[in-house]
This record gives sequence, C-alpha cells and structure tokens, in this order.
Amino acid sequence: MKILIIGGDGYLGWPTAMHFAKKNHRVHLIDDFSKRTIENENSVAPLVNIETMENRVKAWNSLRIGKKISFSFGSMVNHRFVYEQLKKIKPDHIIHYGEQPSAPYSMAGRSQAVFTQSNNIIGSLNLLFGIKKYCPTAHLIKLGTMGVYGTPNIDIEEGFIKIKHKNRQDIMQFPMKPLSYYHCSKAADSINLYFASRVWGLRATDLNQGVVYGIDTPETIMSENLNTSFHYDHIFGTVINRFMVQASIGKPLLVYGQGEQIRTFLNINDTLQCVELAVKNPAKKNEYKVRNQFTEVFTIKNLAYLVQKSAKKIGINPKIKFIKNPRNESQGHHFNPSNKSFLKLGLKPRKLNPNFILENMKKILVNKDNIDLRVLSPKIKWKN
Amino acid sequence: MKILIIGGDGYLGWPTAMHFAKKNHRVHLIDDFSKRTIENENSVAPLVNIETMENRVKAWNSLRIGKKISFSFGSMVNHRFVYEQLKKIKPDHIIHYGEQPSAPYSMAGRSQAVFTQSNNIIGSLNLLFGIKKYCPTAHLIKLGTMGVYGTPNIDIEEGFIKIKHKNRQDIMQFPMKPLSYYHCSKAADSINLYFASRVWGLRATDLNQGVVYGIDTPETIMSENLNTSFHYDHIFGTVINRFMVQASIGKPLLVYGQGEQIRTFLNINDTLQCVELAVKNPAKKNEYKVRNQFTEVFTIKNLAYLVQKSAKKIGINPKIKFIKNPRNESQGHHFNPSNKSFLKLGLKPRKLNPNFILENMKKILVNKDNIDLRVLSPKIKWKN
Repeated sequence: MKILIIGGDGYLGWPTAMHFAKKNHRVHLIDDFSKRTIENENSVAPLVNIETMENRVKAWNSLRIGKKISFSFGSMVNHRFVYEQLKKIKPDHIIHYGEQPSAPYSMAGRSQAVFTQSNNIIGSLNLLFGIKKYCPTAHLIKLGTMGVYGTPNIDIEEGFIKIKHKNRQDIMQFPMKPLSYYHCSKAADSINLYFASRVWGLRATDLNQGVVYGIDTPETIMSENLNTSFHYDHIFGTVINRFMVQASIGKPLLVYGQGEQIRTFLNINDTLQCVELAVKNPAKKNEYKVRNQFTEVFTIKNLAYLVQKSAKKIGINPKIKFIKNPRNESQGHHFNPSNKSFLKLGLKPRKLNPNFILENMKKILVNKDNIDLRVLSPKIKWKN
Repeated sequence: MKILIIGGDGYLGWPTAMHFAKKNHRVHLIDDFSKRTIENENSVAPLVNIETMENRVKAWNSLRIGKKISFSFGSMVNHRFVYEQLKKIKPDHIIHYGEQPSAPYSMAGRSQAVFTQSNNIIGSLNLLFGIKKYCPTAHLIKLGTMGVYGTPNIDIEEGFIKIKHKNRQDIMQFPMKPLSYYHCSKAADSINLYFASRVWGLRATDLNQGVVYGIDTPETIMSENLNTSFHYDHIFGTVINRFMVQASIGKPLLVYGQGEQIRTFLNINDTLQCVELAVKNPAKKNEYKVRNQFTEVFTIKNLAYLVQKSAKKIGINPKIKFIKNPRNESQGHHFNPSNKSFLKLGLKPRKLNPNFILENMKKILVNKDNIDLRVLSPKIKWKN
C-alpha cells in the first residue's frame, strides 16, 4: 500500500514511517520542520540529537529492511505543494501528524496561537481540497487529541453521542470543550473533516489520542541514526517523559496543581499499533469515524508516585513538588472516556509499569549530560 | 457608551452604526472592504449603489442626529491594526460583524474556503488577544449563525444543552453540524470564544442569527447616501431578498430542491433590536452567552408561496421553479429552534407579511434597471 505520512519528522511520524516501511508498504514523508523551528525559537531540543531528515532516511534505506522511505520538504499551508504531493503519490492512506502539537506553545501569545491555528486548520483544509481533487478514495487518518473533549461531567464516548432531548433523539458529534488554542485548532479540524466526509464523501478517521510516552520503538533502536525526537521540555515534553527525565537526575517531579487532573495515556508503540489498526480498518466512503486512542487513565499525581517508586529501585529518590498550575484545568473532575473501538479491533494495550520506566530511565541516564535544567519547569501560563 | 463595530461597511454593520449613533452612542467603525472585493471578484453588486464609506459617514455626520460616526480602514487579520484600534477606542462594546458572510462563496473552491476560514477564525483570534490586552472588560458581541447547528433531529437550544448520559449529566455546548465551510468557520469561532471566556474571563455574547431580510431601516431611508448594501445575487443574496427581486421583475422564484428545508428568519430591523438588547444585557465576566437571533421559522417553499401571493396583489404572477439543489441539505427534517432568550429580554418580533414584501418590492421596482439577470441563479455547487 502507498502511505503518505504528513509530519514525518516528528516524534510519532518518524517511528510510524519505519513501522510501515518495515512491513513493505511504500512510505512517503512530508514535513516543513516547523517543529524544529519552534525548538530553536524556544531553546529546547530533544534529549538525544536527531539526524537531519535526509540522513535518517538514508540510514533507514541502507538497512534494506522492507521498503525504502522517501521524503519531500514542504508546508501544508502551501496548497501547491500539497496538491503536487497527492498527485504524485496517489496514496491509499494519508496519516496526518502534520500539526503544531504543543498546547503550551499555543498559549504563549498571539503569534503562537495564530501560527497554531493557521498551520493546523488551514493546512488540513488544503489537504481536504487536495484529496477531493487528486485522490478522493484515499483514506485520511488524522491525529486528533483527547483534549478536545475537555473534562465533561459525563462519560466520554468516541466522537459521537446519542442525545435524548424532549422526547426526540439524534446521534451528534460529542460536544467539545478544548483545553488550549491548540486543542481548539483540533476541534476546528474535526468539524471541517466531518463536514468534508458528509458533503464530498471523503473517507476519514479521526484519532483522538491521549498523551504519548516512551523513547523507543523496535525500529528506533536499530541504529543511533534512527532515534525519534524525545522531548522532556516544557514545550513539547509530555508529562510521563518529563517525569522520567526529572527522576533520572534526582530533580523533583513537577506536578501542576494538586495533580488530581485525570488524563489518558499510551505507549508510543501503541500509537503504532493503533494507527496500523486504523489503516487495516479504514473508514468507508462518506464515513467520518472517530476512535479514542489511549490505553490507560491516570491522575497526574499517581503518575508521579509511579515514577518515584520506580526510581527508588535504582537508588534514586526524587521528590514530588506540587507547583502552581500554569494551565487552566479542572481539579478532581469526573473522567471516564471510552476506548472500546480499538479494543474491538484487537488492540493489545501495553501497561505502564516500573520496568518500562526503568528501561527508559536507563537510556535517559546515558544521555543525562544533554539535559538542560532550564527547560524542566513550565514558563508559559494560560492566564498570563 | 463607546461602541466599536467591526464590518461597519456591511449590510448589517452600517445600519447598526446609525442605529447606535442616533441614540447618542460613540460609534467607531472598522472595515477592510473585503466584501466589496468579493463582489468585484464575482461580478455582483448591491441592487442600489452604495456610497464609499467616507461619503456615507459624511452624509450621516452632516445630518447632525445623535453622535457622529468615525471610521478606520484595516483588516482584522492584521493584529497591529486591531490592537491600535482597541487601544485608541477602549470600547465598552464590540459588535463583530467583520467576517466573510457568504456560505456559497466559501464553497466555491479552495482559495475561497481558505480565505473564509483564515479571515474569520484568525481575525477573531486577533480580536480576542487584543481585548485581553487593551480592554479586558469590554463586552464582545460576535455575530454567529443558526447554520452552525445544522438540522439536528432534536430541538435546538441556545448554545448549550443539558445532556443526560449513563446516569450523569452536564451542560455542554450544543453540538454543531455546520452547513458549509463558512458555517464551519463560525463553529471554530464559537469554540475559541467560549475558551477565551473560560480561561481569560472575557465577556462574550454569541448571536446565532437566522437569515436576515429587508432593504431599509429608519436611518437608511433618511438619505439616498445612507442605503445599506441590499444583495439579491447568488453569492450574498439571502433567500427572501432574492425572491422579492425575482418576483419584482416577473422572473421565476428559484427554490433549491423541493424547498422543504426549514430555516430561521428575521427582519433587518429586528437585527438592530436584538443587537441593542444584547448591548443592554451584556454577558458578565467569564460568561459566554449564546442567544439565537431570529423571529420566525419557514420552509423555503412557503416563503416562495408568500412572495408569490404578495406579488399577485400588484398584478405580477411569478412562477415558482424548483431547481436542483446546489447545496447539501436535508429535506423534510425536524427543526425546532428556541429563541426564548431574546423574547425574555423583550424582543417584539416583526412578522414577515405581504405588506412588507410589497413595500420592499416597490423600492426594488424603482431600481429594476440595476438588476443583473445573470446573477439570479446559483452557480456554486457544494459537490462540484
């Protein structure tokens, strides 16, 4: 199958590329390196240095495993580039990771919020028009986020909910209450995508993903040149990854607020598993399918305890420090999201456990000289 | 009070400006004339020629009624302009009509859809950041559209709905199912606006407006130079306005599909009434208040019959022609939207009636030489 991966340079895009190439799919990547630009803008970097895209692709292709990967540089906001790529590749599946992915970045100020929404919404809109024009039967898998739901006081279903109201009923898009301008951009994307599937008959899967953690996949460990971009900083670092880095060097685990916020999580390898299941079980013509993509639910506080407990096994005893929450989040809220859809397709969840944490901490410790202490604590406030 | 009207050159913006100026409010307008640009792009024009903004403002100010109106040229997408205006004016209320308002235009192609979403979503996002920075206690009244709701099989409440689900409940944003990329842009706006009110405490009223009809307000008729832009074309002409023009010259009333679509409507004078009620009953700090702004509900078919019946009274007997629907709309759907919120505040609805239609047709007949027959039928298809 021909698979186009947008955002192929990213934390998830690059491992996804190798995962499908290994299984003999024809994988083409595009990226505009806007995430690397934001890294430079904010003086943050992945823990382990990442090769240039050209070198990563060369490194993979020289292994002669499965199929070769190819790459084109360009932005989704440039529709001529998008059209040219779709026309050339005629993909069967398009996996769209190509969005500015940091909630804190989107809250840093006007220009960051505007960049996030322009890049994400307009880029995806260009993609919809391109698909309609050049490959209308292609299956679009767009990465969304569980953060579009917010923390409602009812159970979270997968994209849609049956609403009974005044003796009538309808199945409607699950109401969204996003947590940042980044999450708002994802909500807008989902509205556009659902519309395009209704009006043009496009085939779309929206994966509302939880918070991803972990450094390695079976492919990244094959060579140093195949690493993916593991972030631990306040811009791109997700919470488990941040805790593991803080623990590794004996720094306090910084919990925002009281840590009673409940979130969804999954191992980076389960992202690959889910995306593959989405490819194997595509949406039909006219169908906009939403799947919640996570394996476990934790409070932030309990994650901190788990990382702390794991660290103790190798003689490190990091403190847990509760700091003023820079975000605007509910504390002690109801949270019961469904992930039935992937379980039904056969998802085998990896569970977060002390062994996994220690394994990751080992790799972090090898690279501990790279850790920049200045980026461990949050600098962007939601209400600044 | 100081009132900033964004989109002050528009069909509704200009009459709103005079309405408030007459009542001794300090009114400042901004506009970038992007609607006039789209008129040129599509070879459509208002039925009656509209003066330049400068001349309209001069004409109003020379009447010495109430207060003078002032105007600045600039785009909402240019945040420096937005910031400068907010800093200078420090408005008490901001009435935001400044969005690309045509659903068909947004469906004409990629560049039109992208213009609509960039202009509307990013322009409004700039505004939110500007308000936070320069006038955080100002009350923002943003014009939305009933089209964000689509045509769900349950009754449409005003912005929010209490959802009971698996023995729990929450009051949530009413699920949106927009009818075009224009309507999608309004949905995205509403999501951003609700977010800004939650996180920054902004005061916001979202007016989900029905389809507006009518040529005149008490101020527009005071001088030829004070006309507002009455459109009857396939881009900007709303359905009642189009029917009245078609009837005036004995052309068939073009009904899309079987005309069983049900929509909400209001007289242009009731737009002014509602906006004034929204000013007098502002949202509080942290509040995002949604009001559905319409007075009546009709099927398109029944509107055609009503216009036909009215025309007969002056000896014109236009045919009703059912043409293939260029849009993607449900036929024969449930539709029961609430407009309690404005009724509670004292809205006195004007009803659409034959006298009103004939009065408008009289003014249309005076200007019938201006009618361009080529723009009477739809040219933009939702599924082109």
